[in-house]
Amino acid sequence: MISTVEDYAASLRALRRRVYAMGERIEDITSHPLTRPSFLAVAQTYELARDAQHAHLFLAESPILGSKVNRFTHIHCSTADLVAKVKMLRLLGQVTGCCFQRCVGMDALNALYSVTYDIDVAMGTRYHRRFVDFLQKVQRENLVCGGAMTDPKGDRGLRPSQQTDPDLYLHVVDKNADGMVVRGAKCHQTGTLNAHEIIVMPTAAMGPEEQAYAVSFAVPTDAPGLTYVLGRQPSDTRKLEGWPIDVGSAYGGHEVLVVFQDVFVPWERVFLFGEHQFAGVLVERFAAYHRQSYGGCKVGVGDVIVGAAALAAEIHGVDRASHVRDKLVEMVHLNETMYACGLACSSEGWRTPSGAYMVDVLLANVCKLNVTRLTYEIARLAEDLAGGLLVTMPSQADLEHPEIGPLVRKYLSARVNAETRMRVLRLIEFLTTGPGGAAYRTESMHGAGSPQTQRVMIGRQAQWEKKKELAKRLACIT
Amino acid sequence: MISTVEDYAASLRALRRRVYAMGERIEDITSHPLTRPSFLAVAQTYELARDAQHAHLFLAESPILGSKVNRFTHIHCSTADLVAKVKMLRLLGQVTGCCFQRCVGMDALNALYSVTYDIDVAMGTRYHRRFVDFLQKVQRENLVCGGAMTDPKGDRGLRPSQQTDPDLYLHVVDKNADGMVVRGAKCHQTGTLNAHEIIVMPTAAMGPEEQAYAVSFAVPTDAPGLTYVLGRQPSDTRKLEGWPIDVGSAYGGHEVLVVFQDVFVPWERVFLFGEHQFAGVLVERFAAYHRQSYGGCKVGVGDVIVGAAALAAEIHGVDRASHVRDKLVEMVHLNETMYACGLACSSEGWRTPSGAYMVDVLLANVCKLNVTRLTYEIARLAEDLAGGLLVTMPSQADLEHPEIGPLVRKYLSARVNAETRMRVLRLIEFLTTGPGGAAYRTESMHGAGSPQTQRVMIGRQAQWEKKKELAKRLACIT
Amino acid sequence: MISTVEDYAASLRALRRRVYAMGERIEDITSHPLTRPSFLAVAQTYELARDAQHAHLFLAESPILGSKVNRFTHIHCSTADLVAKVKMLRLLGQVTGCCFQRCVGMDALNALYSVTYDIDVAMGTRYHRRFVDFLQKVQRENLVCGGAMTDPKGDRGLRPSQQTDPDLYLHVVDKNADGMVVRGAKCHQTGTLNAHEIIVMPTAAMGPEEQAYAVSFAVPTDAPGLTYVLGRQPSDTRKLEGWPIDVGSAYGGHEVLVVFQDVFVPWERVFLFGEHQFAGVLVERFAAYHRQSYGGCKVGVGDVIVGAAALAAEIHGVDRASHVRDKLVEMVHLNETMYACGLACSSEGWRTPSGAYMVDVLLANVCKLNVTRLTYEIARLAEDLAGGLLVTMPSQADLEHPEIGPLVRKYLSARVNAETRMRVLRLIEFLTTGPGGAAYRTESMHGAGSPQTQRVMIGRQAQWEKKKELAKRLACIT
Amino acid sequence: MISTVEDYAASLRALRRRVYAMGERIEDITSHPLTRPSFLAVAQTYELARDAQHAHLFLAESPILGSKVNRFTHIHCSTADLVAKVKMLRLLGQVTGCCFQRCVGMDALNALYSVTYDIDVAMGTRYHRRFVDFLQKVQRENLVCGGAMTDPKGDRGLRPSQQTDPDLYLHVVDKNADGMVVRGAKCHQTGTLNAHEIIVMPTAAMGPEEQAYAVSFAVPTDAPGLTYVLGRQPSDTRKLEGWPIDVGSAYGGHEVLVVFQDVFVPWERVFLFGEHQFAGVLVERFAAYHRQSYGGCKVGVGDVIVGAAALAAEIHGVDRASHVRDKLVEMVHLNETMYACGLACSSEGWRTPSGAYMVDVLLANVCKLNVTRLTYEIARLAEDLAGGLLVTMPSQADLEHPEIGPLVRKYLSARVNAETRMRVLRLIEFLTTGPGGAAYRTESMHGAGSPQTQRVMIGRQAQWEKKKELAKRLACIT
Repeated sequence: MISTVEDYAASLRALRRRVYAMGERIEDITSHPLTRPSFLAVAQTYELARDAQHAHLFLAESPILGSKVNRFTHIHCSTADLVAKVKMLRLLGQVTGCCFQRCVGMDALNALYSVTYDIDVAMGTRYHRRFVDFLQKVQRENLVCGGAMTDPKGDRGLRPSQQTDPDLYLHVVDKNADGMVVRGAKCHQTGTLNAHEIIVMPTAAMGPEEQAYAVSFAVPTDAPGLTYVLGRQPSDTRKLEGWPIDVGSAYGGHEVLVVFQDVFVPWERVFLFGEHQFAGVLVERFAAYHRQSYGGCKVGVGDVIVGAAALAAEIHGVDRASHVRDKLVEMVHLNETMYACGLACSSEGWRTPSGAYMVDVLLANVCKLNVTRLTYEIARLAEDLAGGLLVTMPSQADLEHPEIGPLVRKYLSARVNAETRMRVLRLIEFLTTGPGGAAYRTESMHGAGSPQTQRVMIGRQAQWEKKKELAKRLACIT
Repeated sequence: MISTVEDYAASLRALRRRVYAMGERIEDITSHPLTRPSFLAVAQTYELARDAQHAHLFLAESPILGSKVNRFTHIHCSTADLVAKVKMLRLLGQVTGCCFQRCVGMDALNALYSVTYDIDVAMGTRYHRRFVDFLQKVQRENLVCGGAMTDPKGDRGLRPSQQTDPDLYLHVVDKNADGMVVRGAKCHQTGTLNAHEIIVMPTAAMGPEEQAYAVSFAVPTDAPGLTYVLGRQPSDTRKLEGWPIDVGSAYGGHEVLVVFQDVFVPWERVFLFGEHQFAGVLVERFAAYHRQSYGGCKVGVGDVIVGAAALAAEIHGVDRASHVRDKLVEMVHLNETMYACGLACSSEGWRTPSGAYMVDVLLANVCKLNVTRLTYEIARLAEDLAGGLLVTMPSQADLEHPEIGPLVRKYLSARVNAETRMRVLRLIEFLTTGPGGAAYRTESMHGAGSPQTQRVMIGRQAQWEKKKELAKRLACIT
Repeated sequence: MISTVEDYAASLRALRRRVYAMGERIEDITSHPLTRPSFLAVAQTYELARDAQHAHLFLAESPILGSKVNRFTHIHCSTADLVAKVKMLRLLGQVTGCCFQRCVGMDALNALYSVTYDIDVAMGTRYHRRFVDFLQKVQRENLVCGGAMTDPKGDRGLRPSQQTDPDLYLHVVDKNADGMVVRGAKCHQTGTLNAHEIIVMPTAAMGPEEQAYAVSFAVPTDAPGLTYVLGRQPSDTRKLEGWPIDVGSAYGGHEVLVVFQDVFVPWERVFLFGEHQFAGVLVERFAAYHRQSYGGCKVGVGDVIVGAAALAAEIHGVDRASHVRDKLVEMVHLNETMYACGLACSSEGWRTPSGAYMVDVLLANVCKLNVTRLTYEIARLAEDLAGGLLVTMPSQADLEHPEIGPLVRKYLSARVNAETRMRVLRLIEFLTTGPGGAAYRTESMHGAGSPQTQRVMIGRQAQWEKKKELAKRLACIT
Repeated sequence: MISTVEDYAASLRALRRRVYAMGERIEDITSHPLTRPSFLAVAQTYELARDAQHAHLFLAESPILGSKVNRFTHIHCSTADLVAKVKMLRLLGQVTGCCFQRCVGMDALNALYSVTYDIDVAMGTRYHRRFVDFLQKVQRENLVCGGAMTDPKGDRGLRPSQQTDPDLYLHVVDKNADGMVVRGAKCHQTGTLNAHEIIVMPTAAMGPEEQAYAVSFAVPTDAPGLTYVLGRQPSDTRKLEGWPIDVGSAYGGHEVLVVFQDVFVPWERVFLFGEHQFAGVLVERFAAYHRQSYGGCKVGVGDVIVGAAALAAEIHGVDRASHVRDKLVEMVHLNETMYACGLACSSEGWRTPSGAYMVDVLLANVCKLNVTRLTYEIARLAEDLAGGLLVTMPSQADLEHPEIGPLVRKYLSARVNAETRMRVLRLIEFLTTGPGGAAYRTESMHGAGSPQTQRVMIGRQAQWEKKKELAKRLACIT
């Protein structure tokens, strides 16, 4: 069982994987400067669980294992569990200021738990038992799981089966007595290099002609046939330059393109195999859990942004100006609005037949749709309060240069010295327009589905007929 | 004990009060066309409590009385109680499509319950016992209470004690062994003509020089010295015209100016008398409960508006247009965002030393601040979907006129006949720009405090130092 | 030629028309309390033209008549004319605080001037000459024209020719050597009771099977077969109560349903007769001129709202609070943004082959789309600054009542006396949620086309291919 | 006279300057990869002026020189000149997709032209003549001028004279018969490395005790005592990596910190020397011109963003989805709203006593305030339409890698091949969150003054008393 950060690092180093970044192979992702910040962020999910102060959020009693487990591997047994998840994620957002990557696996585990149960009831299959066996291993060993949903999709005007290249949606290409073989890729895979296992799910509802695409399973991240290509983020290579102030933060996230070149999966790790009519519900359930997550993690990062903007105002000597105060209050208001949505979809959760608790789907989608907007406004206000220096500031190399360093120090000092000011502004830059901005803005937009997918779900959940009846009754229309 | 609507009407008719509207005296507010809609709305708080389907929301076990009471008289004993309140208010908003006026009393009772307890602990007074006696009567008899906070205030740049006319803030002008005498007025009093009791509270925090203004008490609404003047609402006198379609809804709300001309209050009904240092906390606690309320009632009215707008789109034959669908989804999104805030500040409630449960103050203020904005956008979208006919439609008198009625019927028909279309549009007009708009828009803005008061509270609750510490830690500033 | 307000009133009284309001016939619209405010508003278009200070805006040299004419009857001969129109409309909005109703006719005249020219060139017809003859009469006699476009439309999912009742779109039902006969109705007709002539245009682009609907013409407003039914506005009957303060303003607008029961039109007044392929361009051109108009008139009304809100803040003693100041500045910012759009679509105008100047169509649509949003936000901010008294204030009858009047005066006084305060708040009520709100909000939404129609036009004018080329060039895509 | 790009490059290479970037000295900014993109952008201001198609925008008849000059060196002689400026800037924004840096100098020249005239009239000084001499040189030689306004400011709660270090505001430290000596720095200096001359202005209004800070002058950019430190931008060092696709665009901008270490300025180049009462008007006039500029340049960049987003939608196969279409239309609407403001403040310009034309100050501030908001929303919508790949896409090095390149090409292909898709998304990344985002977002926020400075100016220009009078008149308040 992985317990400490050291255990965790060792477990990752033990994996033999084919990882590329910037055209070169990476051997140890825990030490490579491009990926280490993201390892450090996930490591906090182990670290904080060992901290007595936070144990109530990070540890949960698992009825499956009969002992305490890390909440990231836990199946929610109550609305209290769902609420605790949101609070844990906010805390991690506060501590890391970035995407800490482990919730996608938690959300995949929870979605599969209840959906495999429902499939078995409906179809007489045995997926749930298989899944619980896998889950027990994850809980027992305290593993990090990636959750892989998004296929490359090619031309989105065409169905999977209509694509020129059938591999643009991951699909089964072979099977035998021991298992099946899959081919394809998953895009935008958050944090997968920090994971021990990948849980694969279909990317969308599937029709009868798309049985080969209606597939869900788990593979170790070093399974033969897997290749990883790291995605670029804004200002990513500042991590290679050796000037930590210019990076802005020691933490970060990452996304990879994961390619499956005829990967073999034994049957005991297959959780959906052709039952196309359940692909949609699996997507919706995972998406709902994951849209809830954003009401926690991004709120925590928002706390950091608010704090950094308040610091910047103080440093510049304008913290008492009414318009500055007003903008800070607005940022808090927007941030807490997202939190309220995260909490509400949790406290309104409901018990599925499997016993696992599901979030309120309407409110979870409302939560995420707010996240696609309010984070951008918070970032905009932070850039307003930070001032133009955010993008005109000299480098740390200049600050420490023997000749021009003194000039930079002299002219960048404010109520504090130039270095402190630079640290605060570089953190804001990181969070709004640097690698952290990729997580705070773009991931807030597209993670767990782009805004239009939330709108579609809200439309489906809106109970139009009931609302029209209310109006008819008041308007005395019979 | 009042149980049925008939009981309730009789109890109000039994009160001898001095009520003016439009320059004339009203004797029976339950039957006068200007006030009957508002009586009917409050009556639903009795009616629905008798409905088995809704009893779980409307009835609560009171530990004070040792029996079930109407939730509008209940002291919240758990976060579940706080959540149930929000759901009850949403239901009432859906059923009445207006302000049903009884929550202000509920919120006043809950605020005084814990604050009188705290005063007694701090000051050695006996207010809590007195208050509980009064509360028991309210619960036992199932009374409607008004909650009176807002003073006229005169020049708001001046403190109460600095006003030219000292009566512009309600204050004590005399006292004797039996009680005290108060003078002043309370503005914007929602639904007080439908109340049996008025619970008076100070309008703001008070200083040592303002002890005479730091006063809280209850009086029956027919206490000698009280005068009521009904406020005008948009399109109010349509209720006098005898054409119900033009009014838009049979329900409504009302506000009155309540004047206290040397009203005597016996000591057993006085809950604060000069302890100025507690005026602020009483205001804040009442305000927080009341800001929570808006996350229920306005959401229910929002459901009606969404339903009416969806009906209008259907009637006009445009319900499948993508931009129409998109606006309806947006309305639901905004409406549920308010609901999420109402729920979250409730589920995050906390136990006060008195045992009563208090909402999360930060989230309750976030809730109300959203209500001051999102209701307006929902109304705007409803006006967009309703079409211009909303304000260009002939009267019911024209519709039923022997000569021009046929023309109106011919040219106003759509997918439904002209009368049905007119009913739907008049309901939308009522809710957005008629008497209901006064409640849905202006009351959403100013009820429970204008938006700036919520911003001030958010600023106070924002934990700035903690947020700055988070930023400093990530920026490596020591 | 009509020159003075008295001339104008006499000219309207001379018309024999069938007008209904609230189920009753109105004989003299210049004196009836429901319609007089709207007559007074139009009268200002004559009055201000006689004022030397404003003559440069209100009078224009007409090359058609060879003399100065009222700009409301003028064909724009330059971009300076287009700009002057916007400034004239802003001034009238400032003076009347409402819709002054005469621009729709001006916009119809200008649209028909260039479109009839284009039709003649394309089709060899003689519409332009006919139209100029009509125009000369309008200019010479200084007439008010209504512009009638919007048909009832029935089920909007169906084309005109598909409706159950063919009359739901106005169409030709007969013709002979002298002229044609039309049947149908026009909805939402702004100010038509104050007009001498109605200029009818098709409501949308028409197809080959809809020739009978592709018709444009002018008729005197007292032509046989015309019936007018006045539309209700919020709080409209306050005008009948005899308490002017409660109304809020002496000016106002009105809309009517105009029914055409087999109205005969002589050929010399027919400007389009079956050339369906020109219906669309006529609609678009009229719409573009009319969308420009909103960048003037609503800005003028906005000036009044800003001024009233600033007064309210002063009266309440909060004008120095930073949040109050901030809201007032925001209102000005939004108001001037609309003005900038009105000016820009004018200064970027272009000469049509007819010689008349046309606005920039893209910018005119951008102008109007902003008006559908920003007016609502300005109104919302005004309601914020006005305070809750806006909808809780006693009536003028209470204010002047011998018994309770003194109480109302005492408790409603602020930095000014109660009556002054009441006047300011009633004006704001009028403008945001009263009869003026129908013009400032709902008409801003739907007048000159609902927002979706502007979006469609913006989409058509956006030059997508050019923009994509710009991007390709920078991205080095060949 | 500089005519071609080659002339321009040679003229810059001839300058001997002390320039640092990333802790190292740069010798030739026209060829160094960090600064070359910004040189290329400015070069377009020469290149397009030689293009017959654009000459009418880029060349203007200068009455000062009596010949055609590049508009960037021209004093506006009419509102037509002001409008042409906006159109020229939009075109350059379309061509370069970035800040082309030359307008700050144009705006400084125009501000000084009229202000020096006014000073001379008021004070009997001879600044205007001196300034015209300098201007003639600039026009004759077709020079690029930087405009330097923003001082470091230190603690903004303190006045210049109260700072711990007096050099935190640039000031005069010595003078003699030939000239004066200045010390201090200017921050956020856009494009100064591409300039031949720096025109220095005070950063704010100055009081009598701040005469040493009330100073304006011009110096060549290679004057002894000047040091330049390049500011970092997001993803800036991608330009050093050798993979052009990952950069996103060949153009860019730059900002520098310019340090003045006792720089000598001869009297003939001093345009303000201690007349503190004119510092404010100089700032306001420069700011107004510069706020107008944003209504041109950012609109041009917006065109590129709209085009790139439309391309991305096409590439992904979703360009016909109604929500995609709707977002693109919204982007155009917002972009054209800014343009309308840029045009309107120009067409409403006015003649100063000097003969130079000034923009409408209210509308110019409204323009810029819109730019601080609408650009962010356009960028947000572009990120929505681009999809998550924007921040998860592999590098060009991966794309071209012999082993994994084929995988990247296979799985990133859409309706077009992977490389084309990558180019479009990298351009969007560049514009929204890369080096171009620094210009499109942060510079839109803070360039020409942060939003609060525009609010202050709008407040000053709002004619409150006139607006209150309008309201009083309608409310019948005497």
